[in-house]
Amino acid sequence: MERGVITLITDFGTKDSYTGVLKGVILGINPMVRLVDITHEISPQDIFEAGFILNNSYKFFPEGTIHLVVVDPGVGSKRKAILMKAGDYLFIGPDNGAFSFIYESERIDKIVELINNKYFLPFISNTFQGRDIFAPAAAYLSRGTPLEDFGESCNEVVKFDIPKPEIKKGEINGVVLHVDRFGNLISNIPEVLFRKLVGKGKHEVSIGGKALGNIKVSYSEVKEEEEAVALFGSTGYLEVSVRDQDARERPNLNKGNIIKVVHK
Amino acid sequence: MERGVITLITDFGTKDSYTGVLKGVILGINPMVRLVDITHEISPQDIFEAGFILNNSYKFFPEGTIHLVVVDPGVGSKRKAILMKAGDYLFIGPDNGAFSFIYESERIDKIVELINNKYFLPFISNTFQGRDIFAPAAAYLSRGTPLEDFGESCNEVVKFDIPKPEIKKGEINGVVLHVDRFGNLISNIPEVLFRKLVGKGKHEVSIGGKALGNIKVSYSEVKEEEEAVALFGSTGYLEVSVRDQDARERPNLNKGNIIKVVHK
Amino acid sequence: MERGVITLITDFGTKDSYTGVLKGVILGINPMVRLVDITHEISPQDIFEAGFILNNSYKFFPEGTIHLVVVDPGVGSKRKAILMKAGDYLFIGPDNGAFSFIYESERIDKIVELINNKYFLPFISNTFQGRDIFAPAAAYLSRGTPLEDFGESCNEVVKFDIPKPEIKKGEINGVVLHVDRFGNLISNIPEVLFRKLVGKGKHEVSIGGKALGNIKVSYSEVKEEEEAVALFGSTGYLEVSVRDQDARERPNLNKGNIIKVVHK
Repeated sequence: MERGVITLITDFGTKDSYTGVLKGVILGINPMVRLVDITHEISPQDIFEAGFILNNSYKFFPEGTIHLVVVDPGVGSKRKAILMKAGDYLFIGPDNGAFSFIYESERIDKIVELINNKYFLPFISNTFQGRDIFAPAAAYLSRGTPLEDFGESCNEVVKFDIPKPEIKKGEINGVVLHVDRFGNLISNIPEVLFRKLVGKGKHEVSIGGKALGNIKVSYSEVKEEEEAVALFGSTGYLEVSVRDQDARERPNLNKGNIIKVVHK
Repeated sequence: MERGVITLITDFGTKDSYTGVLKGVILGINPMVRLVDITHEISPQDIFEAGFILNNSYKFFPEGTIHLVVVDPGVGSKRKAILMKAGDYLFIGPDNGAFSFIYESERIDKIVELINNKYFLPFISNTFQGRDIFAPAAAYLSRGTPLEDFGESCNEVVKFDIPKPEIKKGEINGVVLHVDRFGNLISNIPEVLFRKLVGKGKHEVSIGGKALGNIKVSYSEVKEEEEAVALFGSTGYLEVSVRDQDARERPNLNKGNIIKVVHK
Repeated sequence: MERGVITLITDFGTKDSYTGVLKGVILGINPMVRLVDITHEISPQDIFEAGFILNNSYKFFPEGTIHLVVVDPGVGSKRKAILMKAGDYLFIGPDNGAFSFIYESERIDKIVELINNKYFLPFISNTFQGRDIFAPAAAYLSRGTPLEDFGESCNEVVKFDIPKPEIKKGEINGVVLHVDRFGNLISNIPEVLFRKLVGKGKHEVSIGGKALGNIKVSYSEVKEEEEAVALFGSTGYLEVSVRDQDARERPNLNKGNIIKVVHK
């Protein structure tokens, strides 16, 4: 039996039995597979956040890892259940847009709609298909069941728009997509874009209209306590941090904020 | 050495070292066993909640799984420490009622009081017997130590009353036993009871006196935003949810609420 | 390939992708190693808390366990990255004082500065060296890479002062170092010190000036609800608890409080 890795991204939280049940179902089908929680703390039903977290993490896992993403506001409706091979990885979850970042950045080899109930639990509820459909499918996949056996090829999937930075007259206008535990505001402005447009040139960053000076190399460059700083974070995107303080506690700093880089 | 699975349900939280210590102790005794967290977020000392979460999850694990449940307000007192074989599973924890749901629904093969200190840590504290007694016992059990070796058979155990729905004159009166992360209010009214008494007949659900109409099949049937809906959830019990909103944010919706189903 | 255990203590939280990424990196290098979360809920950048939690947990793991501790406010600065063999365990993390308790209590066999980039990820960010340096080093270490291969021996490391109880004229004056999930206030007064100085003699405990009577043996000795109680906790230190209530909800009970034991 294959060992392999299944990662989990859900909005199930950790105070109920939902994530434990997912794992029990998987281990009942493949007792050898390794389970890794990425997070169960996706804001309830926030598909975009699930996609964002997936995008920041999936590539750091070994080739062949199965990424199970279950944030499922449409459970019980006619939304599809899908399984995808893209790049070196496999992805399983409801077809609701959570894989939008993957569609943009990876070579999509195959998408299959999960319809073969041989790989489901015997009874399918209308409220917890993570347990009834997605977990068993991931477990069978980890055992080597071929993609084709799960259902028909599927070409139309749900994609949401990923906000792109706008470039005009020496300005890059981005937006804060995520605020992490430390209060770092993570934007959609990639370092590669900045290098290409601004390079080593003079520049000025602002967020929500507030000037932050130029982009720093690391947190340790910030001199005064509580000064806001812009730098390229570990995901390769421009971030704004407030040293020793959660950025969300400062007025006007939050998700959705406009981050502007002006090339002078 | 046996592999096997040990699940963990505790109120230890995840910010201290308590759950890590449990796992360290277990792995020191059986490095091959697989550990699965169900939850460590049981409300402090809430035995009923532990029992409820256990009841919703234990059956989804492979046969032979050991369920370790340590919510232990009586630690250091004379409450017993027990180990039980019931149905296809093994259960370990303080004898304080957390297994009440299991006593009701499973064939109880054997209950043993943990008294053989050969299977304890060398020093037994008065405040953390999860570490000193329950974790090592679970680990030895997962290695195949026979139940008899842990202590004497035990016939009297603590059970708490599990509230049952009341049936009178075409009404089913239940109560909300748990509120999950999404704010779903989970009652004690089983779908099988409803099917038997009401079947496909006309009916009306109310919670805390507020009318909700009839029971829906899935969340997606709800038309207007924020409308409360009653449906049978993934555990087979009647639940009340408020679409796109945590039900607890609505006045009069909480644990302990009366849910009424009237057969018309 | 070695199996082994790597434990994780970080302040990364569980809502972002950071801890998942650490695990993905480790499993890519050693797919056989076992990963155990001690906690990811260290208060952001609280090095002392990380050291305290490590100190309460590391000894309960099997010999040879690798303890990875990444609370890293100085990431991107010139703080060192270190790997240490101490007693029966291995420790990896930034050199910022988080290992201060270990320096005090264990025989330090060897400390190595991590400088051989053969054991790093190819690209080293300035903001997430848990991913780029510490996780890969821990993974290679778990595969049996000798300590010497990671870098040069290192003799000067950062240590912070661990507050010690003061003893004068029949009094022991300690301080609350940590408040756990249950609201137990954990002091720095070890049971062995008390036994030596007070033994079975008459004594009186107070916290923040409030008298608590003598030290009890277990929570169950407390008669009235909500009475504060002093006892020796599972870590071997004097703790103050308020039965059935979080001690922090009582005025004048918190981290930093003075706990006094007077020998009469």
